[in-house]
Amino acid sequence: MANVILFYDIPGNGTADKAWSPNTWKTRYTLNYKGIPYKTVWVEYPDIAGLCKEIGAAPTSYEPDGTPSYTLPVIKDPSTGAVISDSAAIARYLDKTYPDTPVVIPPETDALQAAFQHAFSQAVVGQLGPIMLPATNAQLNPRSEEYFRRTREISRGPMYGEKLEDWAPPGSEKRAKLWKDIKTGFARIAGWLTADGKDKILFMGDKVSYADITVAGWVVWVKRVLGPDSADWKEFATWDNGKWAKLLELLEKYEVVDV
Amino acid sequence: MANVILFYDIPGNGTADKAWSPNTWKTRYTLNYKGIPYKTVWVEYPDIAGLCKEIGAAPTSYEPDGTPSYTLPVIKDPSTGAVISDSAAIARYLDKTYPDTPVVIPPETDALQAAFQHAFSQAVVGQLGPIMLPATNAQLNPRSEEYFRRTREISRGPMYGEKLEDWAPPGSEKRAKLWKDIKTGFARIAGWLTADGKDKILFMGDKVSYADITVAGWVVWVKRVLGPDSADWKEFATWDNGKWAKLLELLEKYEVVDV
Repeated sequence: MANVILFYDIPGNGTADKAWSPNTWKTRYTLNYKGIPYKTVWVEYPDIAGLCKEIGAAPTSYEPDGTPSYTLPVIKDPSTGAVISDSAAIARYLDKTYPDTPVVIPPETDALQAAFQHAFSQAVVGQLGPIMLPATNAQLNPRSEEYFRRTREISRGPMYGEKLEDWAPPGSEKRAKLWKDIKTGFARIAGWLTADGKDKILFMGDKVSYADITVAGWVVWVKRVLGPDSADWKEFATWDNGKWAKLLELLEKYEVVDV
Repeated sequence: MANVILFYDIPGNGTADKAWSPNTWKTRYTLNYKGIPYKTVWVEYPDIAGLCKEIGAAPTSYEPDGTPSYTLPVIKDPSTGAVISDSAAIARYLDKTYPDTPVVIPPETDALQAAFQHAFSQAVVGQLGPIMLPATNAQLNPRSEEYFRRTREISRGPMYGEKLEDWAPPGSEKRAKLWKDIKTGFARIAGWLTADGKDKILFMGDKVSYADITVAGWVVWVKRVLGPDSADWKEFATWDNGKWAKLLELLEKYEVVDV
Protein backbone atom coordinates (compact mmCIF):
# COMPACT_ATOMS: atom_id res chain seq x y z
CA MET A 1 0.00 0.00 0.00
CA ALA A 2 3.07 2.28 -0.25
CA ASN A 3 1.92 3.54 -3.64
CA VAL A 4 -1.74 4.18 -2.91
CA ILE A 5 -3.36 7.48 -3.83
CA LEU A 6 -3.52 10.03 -1.03
CA PHE A 7 -6.98 11.62 -0.81
CA TYR A 8 -7.08 14.87 1.18
CA ASP A 9 -10.35 15.54 2.99
CA ILE A 10 -11.65 17.82 5.77
CA PRO A 11 -12.61 16.06 9.01
CA GLY A 12 -15.79 16.53 11.00
CA ASN A 13 -15.73 15.89 14.73
CA GLY A 14 -17.56 12.57 14.51
CA THR A 15 -15.84 9.80 16.42
CA ALA A 16 -16.86 6.88 14.20
CA ASP A 17 -16.77 8.64 10.83
CA LYS A 18 -15.39 12.07 10.05
CA ALA A 19 -16.52 12.43 6.41
CA TRP A 20 -19.09 15.10 5.58
CA SER A 21 -18.03 17.47 2.74
CA PRO A 22 -20.18 17.26 -0.42
CA ASN A 23 -17.22 18.08 -2.67
CA THR A 24 -14.88 15.51 -1.17
CA TRP A 25 -17.70 12.93 -1.11
CA LYS A 26 -17.76 13.22 -4.90
CA THR A 27 -14.14 12.06 -4.97
CA ARG A 28 -14.68 9.37 -2.33
CA TYR A 29 -17.66 7.98 -4.26
CA THR A 30 -15.54 8.07 -7.44
CA LEU A 31 -12.60 6.23 -5.85
CA ASN A 32 -14.86 3.66 -4.17
CA TYR A 33 -16.93 3.09 -7.33
CA LYS A 34 -13.77 2.56 -9.35
CA GLY A 35 -12.27 0.35 -6.68
CA ILE A 36 -8.98 2.26 -6.71
CA PRO A 37 -6.94 1.87 -3.47
CA TYR A 38 -6.43 5.10 -1.54
CA LYS A 39 -5.79 6.47 1.89
CA THR A 40 -7.65 9.45 3.37
CA VAL A 41 -5.52 12.21 4.86
CA TRP A 42 -7.50 14.56 7.12
CA VAL A 43 -6.67 18.26 6.86
CA GLU A 44 -8.17 21.00 9.05
CA TYR A 45 -9.37 24.15 7.21
CA PRO A 46 -6.54 26.50 8.26
CA ASP A 47 -4.01 23.98 6.91
CA ILE A 48 -5.49 23.50 3.40
CA ALA A 49 -3.68 26.35 1.62
CA GLY A 50 -0.30 25.46 3.14
CA LEU A 51 -0.71 21.79 2.24
CA CYS A 52 -1.71 22.63 -1.36
CA LYS A 53 1.31 24.89 -1.83
CA GLU A 54 3.59 22.26 -0.29
CA ILE A 55 2.45 19.38 -2.52
CA GLY A 56 1.95 21.55 -5.62
CA ALA A 57 -1.86 21.39 -5.84
CA ALA A 58 -3.31 24.07 -8.12
CA PRO A 59 -5.77 26.62 -6.72
CA THR A 60 -9.37 26.02 -7.81
CA SER A 61 -10.20 29.74 -8.15
CA TYR A 62 -8.84 33.23 -7.58
CA GLU A 63 -10.14 36.08 -5.46
CA PRO A 64 -10.95 39.33 -7.33
CA ASP A 65 -7.57 40.67 -6.15
CA GLY A 66 -5.74 37.70 -7.66
CA THR A 67 -5.16 35.76 -4.44
CA PRO A 68 -5.30 32.02 -5.19
CA SER A 69 -7.99 30.03 -3.39
CA TYR A 70 -7.24 26.44 -2.41
CA THR A 71 -9.92 23.83 -1.74
CA LEU A 72 -10.27 20.11 -1.13
CA PRO A 73 -10.61 17.49 -2.49
CA VAL A 74 -7.07 17.07 -3.76
CA ILE A 75 -5.45 13.76 -4.62
CA LYS A 76 -1.79 12.88 -4.90
CA ASP A 77 -0.99 9.83 -6.98
CA PRO A 78 2.49 8.48 -6.15
CA SER A 79 2.46 6.10 -9.12
CA THR A 80 2.39 8.98 -11.63
CA GLY A 81 3.51 11.92 -9.47
CA ALA A 82 0.28 13.76 -10.34
CA VAL A 83 -1.39 16.12 -7.85
CA ILE A 84 -4.94 17.03 -8.90
CA SER A 85 -7.38 19.58 -7.42
CA ASP A 86 -11.15 19.79 -8.02
CA SER A 87 -13.45 16.77 -7.91
CA ALA A 88 -14.40 16.85 -11.61
CA ALA A 89 -10.76 17.14 -12.69
CA ILE A 90 -9.95 14.25 -10.35
CA ALA A 91 -12.69 12.14 -11.97
CA ARG A 92 -11.30 12.91 -15.46
CA TYR A 93 -7.77 12.08 -14.28
CA LEU A 94 -8.83 8.75 -12.76
CA ASP A 95 -10.83 7.79 -15.87
CA LYS A 96 -7.79 8.48 -18.04
CA THR A 97 -5.09 7.04 -15.79
CA TYR A 98 -6.99 3.91 -14.75
CA PRO A 99 -8.84 2.89 -17.93
CA ASP A 100 -9.55 -0.60 -16.56
CA THR A 101 -11.82 0.84 -13.85
CA PRO A 102 -15.45 1.81 -14.57
CA VAL A 103 -15.55 5.15 -16.36
CA VAL A 104 -17.55 7.92 -14.65
CA ILE A 105 -17.36 10.53 -17.43
CA PRO A 106 -17.84 8.70 -20.73
CA PRO A 107 -15.85 10.86 -23.20
CA GLU A 108 -18.82 11.45 -25.54
CA THR A 109 -20.72 12.93 -22.57
CA ASP A 110 -17.88 15.08 -21.22
CA ALA A 111 -19.32 18.46 -22.30
CA LEU A 112 -22.84 17.46 -21.23
CA GLN A 113 -21.51 16.39 -17.82
CA ALA A 114 -19.76 19.78 -17.52
CA ALA A 115 -23.00 21.59 -18.41
CA PHE A 116 -24.79 19.42 -15.85
CA GLN A 117 -22.49 20.76 -13.13
CA HIS A 118 -23.67 24.29 -13.93
CA ALA A 119 -27.34 23.28 -14.12
CA PHE A 120 -27.11 21.39 -10.80
CA SER A 121 -25.35 24.25 -9.10
CA GLN A 122 -27.97 26.76 -10.30
CA ALA A 123 -30.82 24.48 -9.19
CA VAL A 124 -29.86 23.66 -5.59
CA VAL A 125 -26.31 24.35 -4.43
CA GLY A 126 -26.71 27.99 -3.38
CA GLN A 127 -30.06 27.28 -1.75
CA LEU A 128 -28.61 24.51 0.47
CA GLY A 129 -25.93 26.76 1.97
CA PRO A 130 -27.86 28.76 4.57
CA ILE A 131 -29.20 25.56 6.15
CA MET A 132 -26.25 23.25 5.66
CA LEU A 133 -23.29 25.53 6.40
CA PRO A 134 -24.38 26.36 9.97
CA ALA A 135 -25.18 22.69 10.62
CA THR A 136 -21.77 21.71 9.27
CA ASN A 137 -19.99 24.35 11.32
CA ALA A 138 -21.38 22.84 14.50
CA GLN A 139 -19.69 19.53 13.63
CA LEU A 140 -16.17 20.78 12.89
CA ASN A 141 -13.12 20.57 15.13
CA PRO A 142 -12.28 23.85 16.91
CA ARG A 143 -9.53 25.09 14.55
CA SER A 144 -11.68 24.45 11.48
CA GLU A 145 -14.80 25.74 13.20
CA GLU A 146 -13.19 29.12 13.89
CA TYR A 147 -11.91 29.37 10.31
CA PHE A 148 -15.14 28.17 8.69
CA ARG A 149 -17.33 30.52 10.76
CA ARG A 150 -15.14 33.53 10.04
CA THR A 151 -14.85 32.97 6.28
CA ARG A 152 -18.52 32.01 5.77
CA GLU A 153 -19.84 34.85 7.90
CA ILE A 154 -17.76 37.28 5.80
CA SER A 155 -18.83 35.83 2.44
CA ARG A 156 -22.50 35.02 3.04
CA GLY A 157 -23.35 36.93 6.20
CA PRO A 158 -24.35 40.10 4.33
CA MET A 159 -27.12 38.10 2.65
CA TYR A 160 -28.28 35.87 5.48
CA GLY A 161 -27.40 37.47 8.82
CA GLU A 162 -24.35 38.27 10.89
CA LYS A 163 -24.01 34.97 12.75
CA LEU A 164 -24.23 31.50 11.17
CA GLU A 165 -26.78 30.60 13.85
CA ASP A 166 -29.12 33.36 12.60
CA TRP A 167 -29.14 32.28 8.96
CA ALA A 168 -31.93 29.72 9.14
CA PRO A 169 -32.66 28.69 12.72
CA PRO A 170 -34.92 25.65 13.23
CA GLY A 171 -38.56 26.69 13.24
CA SER A 172 -37.93 30.00 11.46
CA GLU A 173 -39.83 31.24 8.40
CA LYS A 174 -36.49 31.77 6.65
CA ARG A 175 -35.73 28.07 7.06
CA ALA A 176 -39.15 27.00 5.81
CA LYS A 177 -38.71 29.21 2.73
CA LEU A 178 -35.24 27.74 2.05
CA TRP A 179 -36.52 24.17 2.29
CA LYS A 180 -39.28 25.09 -0.13
CA ASP A 181 -36.71 26.45 -2.61
CA ILE A 182 -34.49 23.39 -2.17
CA LYS A 183 -37.45 21.10 -2.79
CA THR A 184 -38.33 23.08 -5.95
CA GLY A 185 -34.72 22.77 -7.13
CA PHE A 186 -34.66 19.00 -6.62
CA ALA A 187 -38.03 18.71 -8.39
CA ARG A 188 -36.41 20.47 -11.33
CA ILE A 189 -33.59 17.90 -11.35
CA ALA A 190 -36.19 15.12 -11.12
CA GLY A 191 -37.76 16.70 -14.23
CA TRP A 192 -34.52 16.14 -16.15
CA LEU A 193 -34.47 12.49 -15.03
CA THR A 194 -38.04 11.96 -16.27
CA ALA A 195 -37.97 14.09 -19.45
CA ASP A 196 -38.12 10.96 -21.62
CA GLY A 197 -41.15 9.66 -19.71
CA LYS A 198 -39.09 7.14 -17.71
CA ASP A 199 -38.74 7.58 -13.96
CA LYS A 200 -34.96 7.14 -13.86
CA ILE A 201 -32.71 7.32 -10.79
CA LEU A 202 -29.42 7.50 -12.73
CA PHE A 203 -28.75 10.15 -15.36
CA MET A 204 -27.46 7.72 -17.96
CA GLY A 205 -30.21 5.19 -17.24
CA ASP A 206 -28.47 2.01 -16.18
CA LYS A 207 -24.93 3.06 -15.35
CA VAL A 208 -23.50 5.39 -12.74
CA SER A 209 -21.89 8.58 -14.06
CA TYR A 210 -20.37 11.66 -12.52
CA ALA A 211 -23.74 13.46 -12.62
CA ASP A 212 -25.14 10.87 -10.17
CA ILE A 213 -22.04 11.06 -8.01
CA THR A 214 -22.46 14.84 -7.87
CA VAL A 215 -26.09 14.66 -6.77
CA ALA A 216 -25.22 11.93 -4.25
CA GLY A 217 -22.37 14.01 -2.84
CA TRP A 218 -24.75 16.83 -1.94
CA VAL A 219 -27.59 14.58 -0.77
CA VAL A 220 -25.29 12.54 1.45
CA TRP A 221 -24.13 15.81 3.04
CA VAL A 222 -27.73 16.54 4.03
CA LYS A 223 -28.33 13.02 5.31
CA ARG A 224 -25.12 12.74 7.30
CA VAL A 225 -24.90 16.25 8.79
CA LEU A 226 -28.60 16.69 9.64
CA GLY A 227 -28.66 13.02 10.60
CA PRO A 228 -30.50 10.06 9.03
CA ASP A 229 -33.05 10.19 11.88
CA SER A 230 -33.73 13.94 11.66
CA ALA A 231 -37.18 15.16 10.66
CA ASP A 232 -35.59 17.25 7.88
CA TRP A 233 -33.88 14.25 6.26
CA LYS A 234 -36.94 12.03 6.66
CA GLU A 235 -38.97 14.66 4.78
CA PHE A 236 -36.26 15.09 2.10
CA ALA A 237 -36.20 11.33 1.58
CA THR A 238 -39.86 11.40 0.46
CA TRP A 239 -39.35 14.05 -2.29
CA ASP A 240 -39.80 13.10 -5.95
CA ASN A 241 -41.07 9.59 -5.18
CA GLY A 242 -38.10 9.00 -2.91
CA LYS A 243 -35.68 9.45 -5.81
CA TRP A 244 -32.85 10.97 -3.73
CA ALA A 245 -33.05 8.40 -0.95
CA LYS A 246 -33.09 5.67 -3.62
CA LEU A 247 -29.99 7.18 -5.24
CA LEU A 248 -28.12 6.93 -1.93
CA GLU A 249 -29.31 3.33 -1.51
CA LEU A 250 -28.10 2.52 -4.99
CA LEU A 251 -24.68 3.95 -4.13
CA GLU A 252 -24.67 2.65 -0.55
CA LYS A 253 -21.83 0.22 -1.08
CA TYR A 254 -19.64 3.15 -2.18
CA GLU A 255 -20.62 5.30 0.82
CA VAL A 256 -17.66 3.95 2.74
CA VAL A 257 -14.93 5.79 4.62
CA ASP A 258 -11.57 4.04 4.79
CA VAL A 259 -10.59 5.36 8.22
CA MET B 1 -46.37 14.89 -50.16
CA ALA B 2 -49.91 14.57 -48.83
CA ASN B 3 -48.62 12.92 -45.68
CA VAL B 4 -45.72 15.23 -44.83
CA ILE B 5 -45.33 16.69 -41.37
CA LEU B 6 -46.75 20.19 -40.93
CA PHE B 7 -44.29 22.43 -39.11
CA TYR B 8 -45.86 25.59 -37.66
CA ASP B 9 -43.52 28.60 -37.50
CA ILE B 10 -43.81 32.38 -37.03
CA PRO B 11 -42.92 34.48 -40.10
CA GLY B 12 -40.65 37.49 -40.21
CA ASN B 13 -41.24 40.14 -42.87
CA GLY B 14 -38.29 39.06 -45.03
CA THR B 15 -39.22 38.57 -48.65
CA ALA B 16 -36.72 35.82 -49.47
CA ASP B 17 -36.74 33.98 -46.16
CA LYS B 18 -39.13 34.46 -43.28
CA ALA B 19 -37.49 32.19 -40.66
CA TRP B 20 -36.03 33.79 -37.54
CA SER B 21 -37.30 32.26 -34.24
CA PRO B 22 -34.64 30.47 -32.14
CA ASN B 23 -37.16 27.97 -30.80
CA THR B 24 -38.60 27.02 -34.18
CA TRP B 25 -35.09 26.92 -35.69
CA LYS B 26 -34.36 24.07 -33.25
CA THR B 27 -37.16 22.08 -34.87
CA ARG B 28 -36.19 23.10 -38.42
CA TYR B 29 -32.57 22.05 -37.79
CA THR B 30 -33.86 18.76 -36.32
CA LEU B 31 -36.13 18.02 -39.30
CA ASN B 32 -33.45 18.97 -41.83
CA TYR B 33 -30.73 17.01 -40.03
CA LYS B 34 -32.95 13.95 -39.94
CA GLY B 35 -34.01 14.44 -43.55
CA ILE B 36 -37.69 14.06 -42.70
CA PRO B 37 -40.05 15.65 -45.27
CA TYR B 38 -42.14 18.52 -43.93
CA LYS B 39 -43.94 21.66 -44.98
CA THR B 40 -43.70 24.96 -43.09
CA VAL B 41 -46.99 26.64 -42.20
CA TRP B 42 -46.57 30.31 -41.25
CA VAL B 43 -48.68 31.55 -38.34
CA GLU B 44 -48.83 35.16 -37.12
CA TYR B 45 -48.58 35.67 -33.33
CA PRO B 46 -52.26 36.55 -32.68
CA ASP B 47 -53.29 33.29 -34.41
CA ILE B 48 -51.06 30.87 -32.45
CA ALA B 49 -53.42 30.12 -29.54
CA GLY B 50 -56.42 29.59 -31.82
CA LEU B 51 -54.46 27.29 -34.11
CA CYS B 52 -53.15 25.23 -31.19
CA LYS B 53 -56.63 24.77 -29.73
CA GLU B 54 -57.99 23.86 -33.16
CA ILE B 55 -55.39 21.17 -33.91
CA GLY B 56 -55.14 19.94 -30.33
CA ALA B 57 -51.60 21.15 -29.53
CA ALA B 58 -50.86 21.19 -25.80
CA PRO B 59 -49.91 24.46 -24.09
CA THR B 60 -46.23 24.69 -23.17
CA SER B 61 -46.85 26.51 -19.88
CA TYR B 62 -49.51 28.10 -17.74
CA GLU B 63 -49.88 31.63 -16.42
CA PRO B 64 -50.03 32.01 -12.61
CA ASP B 65 -53.85 32.30 -12.92
CA GLY B 66 -54.03 28.97 -14.77
CA THR B 67 -54.47 30.37 -18.30
CA PRO B 68 -52.74 28.06 -20.78
CA SER B 69 -49.90 29.56 -22.82
CA TYR B 70 -49.40 28.33 -26.40
CA THR B 71 -46.13 28.64 -28.29
CA LEU B 72 -44.50 27.48 -31.51
CA PRO B 73 -42.93 25.29 -32.75
CA VAL B 74 -45.69 22.73 -33.07
CA ILE B 75 -45.71 19.86 -35.52
CA LYS B 76 -48.62 17.80 -36.80
CA ASP B 77 -47.72 14.40 -38.19
CA PRO B 78 -50.52 13.09 -40.45
CA SER B 79 -48.96 9.62 -40.62
CA THR B 80 -49.48 9.04 -36.88
CA GLY B 81 -52.06 11.72 -36.04
CA ALA B 82 -49.70 13.13 -33.40
CA VAL B 83 -49.61 16.86 -32.63
CA ILE B 84 -46.55 17.84 -30.57
CA SER B 85 -45.63 21.16 -28.92
CA ASP B 86 -42.19 22.21 -27.62
CA SER B 87 -38.98 21.76 -29.59
CA ALA B 88 -37.39 19.21 -27.20
CA ALA B 89 -40.57 17.11 -27.09
CA ILE B 90 -40.67 17.26 -30.91
CA ALA B 91 -37.06 16.04 -31.07
CA ARG B 92 -37.89 13.12 -28.75
CA TYR B 93 -41.01 12.30 -30.79
CA LEU B 94 -39.08 12.31 -34.08
CA ASP B 95 -36.27 10.16 -32.64
CA LYS B 96 -38.82 7.61 -31.47
CA THR B 97 -41.17 7.68 -34.47
CA TYR B 98 -38.47 7.72 -37.16
CA PRO B 99 -35.76 5.42 -35.75
CA ASP B 100 -34.05 5.11 -39.14
CA THR B 101 -33.12 8.83 -39.10
CA PRO B 102 -30.07 10.10 -37.18
CA VAL B 103 -30.89 10.33 -33.47
CA VAL B 104 -30.51 13.78 -31.85
CA ILE B 105 -31.10 12.74 -28.22
CA PRO B 106 -29.28 9.44 -27.66
CA PRO B 107 -31.39 7.76 -24.95
CA GLU B 108 -28.48 7.32 -22.53
CA THR B 109 -27.94 11.12 -22.67
CA ASP B 110 -31.59 12.11 -22.33
CA ALA B 111 -31.38 13.43 -18.75
CA LEU B 112 -28.04 15.15 -19.43
CA GLN B 113 -29.52 16.82 -22.52
CA ALA B 114 -32.46 18.00 -20.37
CA ALA B 115 -30.06 19.40 -17.76
CA PHE B 116 -28.14 21.08 -20.58
CA GLN B 117 -31.29 22.98 -21.56
CA HIS B 118 -31.42 24.48 -18.07
CA ALA B 119 -27.69 25.26 -18.00
CA PHE B 120 -27.83 26.90 -21.45
CA SER B 121 -30.87 28.93 -20.53
CA GLN B 122 -29.23 30.19 -17.32
CA ALA B 123 -26.02 31.06 -19.16
CA VAL B 124 -27.31 33.14 -22.08
CA VAL B 125 -31.01 33.03 -22.95
CA GLY B 126 -32.28 35.75 -20.58
CA GLN B 127 -29.31 37.98 -21.41
CA LEU B 128 -30.01 37.87 -25.17
CA GLY B 129 -33.60 39.09 -24.82
CA PRO B 130 -33.18 42.86 -24.34
CA ILE B 131 -31.06 43.09 -27.48
CA MET B 132 -32.72 40.46 -29.66
CA LEU B 133 -36.42 41.01 -28.90
CA PRO B 134 -36.50 44.66 -30.07
CA ALA B 135 -34.48 43.73 -33.20
CA THR B 136 -36.90 40.88 -33.89
CA ASN B 137 -39.95 43.07 -33.33
CA ALA B 138 -38.76 45.41 -36.08
CA GLN B 139 -38.83 42.50 -38.54
CA LEU B 140 -42.34 41.17 -37.87
CA ASN B 141 -45.46 41.66 -39.96
CA PRO B 142 -47.85 44.34 -38.56
CA ARG B 143 -50.31 41.98 -36.78
CA SER B 144 -47.50 40.08 -35.07
CA GLU B 145 -45.54 43.27 -34.40
CA GLU B 146 -48.42 44.80 -32.45
CA TYR B 147 -48.94 41.58 -30.46
CA PHE B 148 -45.23 40.97 -29.81
CA ARG B 149 -44.60 44.57 -28.69
CA ARG B 150 -47.59 44.60 -26.35
CA THR B 151 -46.85 41.25 -24.68
CA ARG B 152 -43.07 41.78 -24.40
CA GLU B 153 -43.44 45.34 -23.10
CA ILE B 154 -45.78 44.02 -20.42
CA SER B 155 -43.60 41.09 -19.40
CA ARG B 156 -40.10 42.60 -19.64
CA GLY B 157 -40.70 46.33 -19.76
CA PRO B 158 -40.65 46.76 -15.98
CA MET B 159 -37.04 45.51 -16.00
CA TYR B 160 -35.71 47.13 -19.16
CA GLY B 161 -37.81 50.20 -19.99
CA GLU B 162 -41.28 51.05 -21.18
CA LYS B 163 -40.72 50.82 -24.95
CA LEU B 164 -38.86 48.02 -26.72
CA GLU B 165 -36.75 50.67 -28.44
CA ASP B 166 -35.46 51.89 -25.06
CA TRP B 167 -34.28 48.50 -23.82
CA ALA B 168 -30.80 48.49 -25.37
CA PRO B 169 -30.47 51.10 -28.09
CA PRO B 170 -27.39 50.92 -30.31
CA GLY B 171 -24.51 52.82 -28.74
CA SER B 172 -26.00 52.73 -25.22
CA GLU B 173 -24.15 51.63 -22.10
CA LYS B 174 -27.00 49.22 -21.37
CA ARG B 175 -26.34 47.50 -24.68
CA ALA B 176 -22.60 47.30 -24.10
CA LYS B 177 -23.21 45.75 -20.67
CA LEU B 178 -25.63 43.19 -22.16
CA TRP B 179 -23.15 42.16 -24.86
CA LYS B 180 -20.53 41.74 -22.15
CA ASP B 181 -22.85 39.44 -20.18
CA ILE B 182 -23.76 37.49 -23.32
CA LYS B 183 -20.08 37.03 -24.15
CA THR B 184 -19.41 35.83 -20.59
CA GLY B 185 -22.29 33.36 -20.92
CA PHE B 186 -21.00 31.94 -24.20
CA ALA B 187 -17.50 31.70 -22.72
CA ARG B 188 -19.03 29.58 -19.96
CA ILE B 189 -20.56 27.28 -22.56
CA ALA B 190 -17.20 27.13 -24.36
CA GLY B 191 -15.76 26.04 -21.00
CA TRP B 192 -18.06 22.99 -20.99
CA LEU B 193 -16.93 22.14 -24.53
CA THR B 194 -13.28 22.26 -23.50
CA ALA B 195 -13.50 20.75 -20.01
CA ASP B 196 -11.71 17.60 -21.21
CA GLY B 197 -8.87 19.65 -22.71
CA LYS B 198 -10.18 19.23 -26.26
CA ASP B 199 -11.44 22.29 -28.16
CA LYS B 200 -14.70 20.70 -29.34
CA ILE B 201 -17.42 22.35 -31.44
CA LEU B 202 -20.04 19.64 -30.86
CA PHE B 203 -21.14 18.56 -27.38
CA MET B 204 -20.82 14.86 -28.06
CA GLY B 205 -17.54 15.28 -29.92
CA ASP B 206 -18.09 13.93 -33.40
CA LYS B 207 -21.84 13.71 -33.77
CA VAL B 208 -24.56 16.34 -33.72
CA SER B 209 -26.97 16.20 -30.78
CA TYR B 210 -29.84 18.31 -29.53
CA ALA B 211 -27.47 20.39 -27.37
CA ASP B 212 -25.71 21.63 -30.55
CA ILE B 213 -29.03 22.23 -32.28
CA THR B 214 -30.13 24.31 -29.28
CA VAL B 215 -27.01 26.48 -29.32
CA ALA B 216 -27.26 26.85 -33.10
CA GLY B 217 -30.93 27.86 -32.86
CA TRP B 218 -30.04 30.82 -30.67
CA VAL B 219 -26.87 31.77 -32.52
CA VAL B 220 -28.61 31.66 -35.89
CA TRP B 221 -31.23 34.04 -34.46
CA VAL B 222 -28.47 36.55 -33.72
CA LYS B 223 -26.84 36.11 -37.12
CA ARG B 224 -30.05 36.33 -39.15
CA VAL B 225 -31.88 39.08 -37.26
CA LEU B 226 -28.90 41.39 -36.63
CA GLY B 227 -27.62 40.42 -40.07
CA PRO B 228 -24.53 38.47 -41.15
CA ASP B 229 -22.86 41.76 -42.16
CA SER B 230 -23.66 43.63 -38.92
CA ALA B 231 -20.82 44.75 -36.67
CA ASP B 232 -22.47 42.95 -33.75
CA TRP B 233 -22.52 39.57 -35.54
CA LYS B 234 -19.00 40.01 -36.88
CA GLU B 235 -17.80 40.55 -33.31
CA PHE B 236 -19.86 37.60 -31.97
CA ALA B 237 -18.36 35.37 -34.67
CA THR B 238 -14.87 35.91 -33.20
CA TRP B 239 -15.76 34.83 -29.66
CA ASP B 240 -14.25 31.65 -28.19
CA ASN B 241 -11.93 31.06 -31.14
CA GLY B 242 -14.82 31.44 -33.55
CA LYS B 243 -16.58 28.44 -32.02
CA TRP B 244 -20.14 29.70 -32.62
CA ALA B 245 -19.56 30.76 -36.20
CA LYS B 246 -17.91 27.37 -36.79
CA LEU B 247 -20.95 25.62 -35.31
CA LEU B 248 -23.24 27.40 -37.80
CA GLU B 249 -20.86 26.48 -40.64
CA LEU B 250 -20.91 22.87 -39.53
CA LEU B 251 -24.73 22.91 -39.60
CA GLU B 252 -24.98 25.14 -42.69
CA LYS B 253 -26.49 22.45 -44.88
CA TYR B 254 -29.35 22.15 -42.38
CA GLU B 255 -29.93 25.92 -42.22
CA VAL B 256 -32.45 25.66 -45.02
CA VAL B 257 -36.03 26.99 -45.19
CA ASP B 258 -38.43 25.02 -47.39
CA VAL B 259 -40.50 27.99 -48.50
